[in-house]
Amino acid sequence: MFTQTNEITFKLPSWISDYTKEIDTLKDINDRALFVIEASRQNILNKTGGPFAAAVFEKDSGALIALGVNLVTSQGLSTLHAEIVALEIAENKLHTYDLSGNEKIEYELVSSCEPCAMCFGAIPWSGVKRVITCAKDEDARAIGFEEGDKPKDWRISFKNRGIEVIDEVKRAEAKEVLNFYLEDGGEIYNGTKS
Amino acid sequence: MFTQTNEITFKLPSWISDYTKEIDTLKDINDRALFVIEASRQNILNKTGGPFAAAVFEKDSGALIALGVNLVTSQGLSTLHAEIVALEIAENKLHTYDLSGNEKIEYELVSSCEPCAMCFGAIPWSGVKRVITCAKDEDARAIGFEEGDKPKDWRISFKNRGIEVIDEVKRAEAKEVLNFYLEDGGEIYNGTKS
Repeated sequence: MFTQTNEITFKLPSWISDYTKEIDTLKDINDRALFVIEASRQNILNKTGGPFAAAVFEKDSGALIALGVNLVTSQGLSTLHAEIVALEIAENKLHTYDLSGNEKIEYELVSSCEPCAMCFGAIPWSGVKRVITCAKDEDARAIGFEEGDKPKDWRISFKNRGIEVIDEVKRAEAKEVLNFYLEDGGEIYNGTKS
Repeated sequence: MFTQTNEITFKLPSWISDYTKEIDTLKDINDRALFVIEASRQNILNKTGGPFAAAVFEKDSGALIALGVNLVTSQGLSTLHAEIVALEIAENKLHTYDLSGNEKIEYELVSSCEPCAMCFGAIPWSGVKRVITCAKDEDARAIGFEEGDKPKDWRISFKNRGIEVIDEVKRAEAKEVLNFYLEDGGEIYNGTKS
């Protein structure tokens, strides 16, 4: 008889609660970027996943809503990129799959790296109104990660959907973490082997 | 003090285990398509999510590995498209985030509808070697669902990654289910409202 699990659970590493407990609001977007970049470094140091982190903030106030990190290798699920994890935690906390639904507050996703093809596609479904990225696509590729085939005009696609993009915020710092992962012998996983 | 949940769980609806228990192997790809299309209809009838289903099979034998359905509205998470759910359940069952890792067995994803931009990006990360789709992108758009901005040459992108695509398998049957969802008054949710 065929059987399969009827639920999937993923867990965040325990260091996350210590890392976030003193954070409330980060008014400056540079501070938001440094916060996710440091989380990506902590994910390496704690060996809890790939070198990527992302967080959802209230766009105007800078109140932190949710922090996610890449959990692909630690949880054994290929879809658990940092952006997906952060969006799911934010939606869980706010009890809605549509973060654009609150007319008074706009939300943003801050990611330590430019989104891959999957996360590019996931962002509009979440309803966030702004995306801030740090490292570039090519910085992830430089250490061996695949980013998939995003439309070349992905920024325009976001703009057409009312999603603002600010990129290369603290890029050097984010790139340094990616390079540290490589030097540290971190696993470079990619999907389809040919 | 900032707090957030340290785990996310999603549950499949209980009808899934009844629906799948007699299924073992579907040798013909038409039967695999009809199996996921009927699951998408059951998801409507049971009011457990959007009108989409997807399953992972062993490509050559047709052995069923995992069935997923769209759980966006029922679980309140925008990322829980049927393809993402099916891939996560398959990876959980096979204890690997890389379904291409087994040299003896190739896996395929059968989806009741052409993948959206997010699922297009997620598929290569899973390692499946073939994608079979039923309804077309435009059939989902015709009832009001957004599909996002996939690269225009998405089939070529898959081909270049060693992922075969077979589309429009039992398209008329799949389209009929989408139309039924609309007539039934099913929720047409989309991400970013502008």
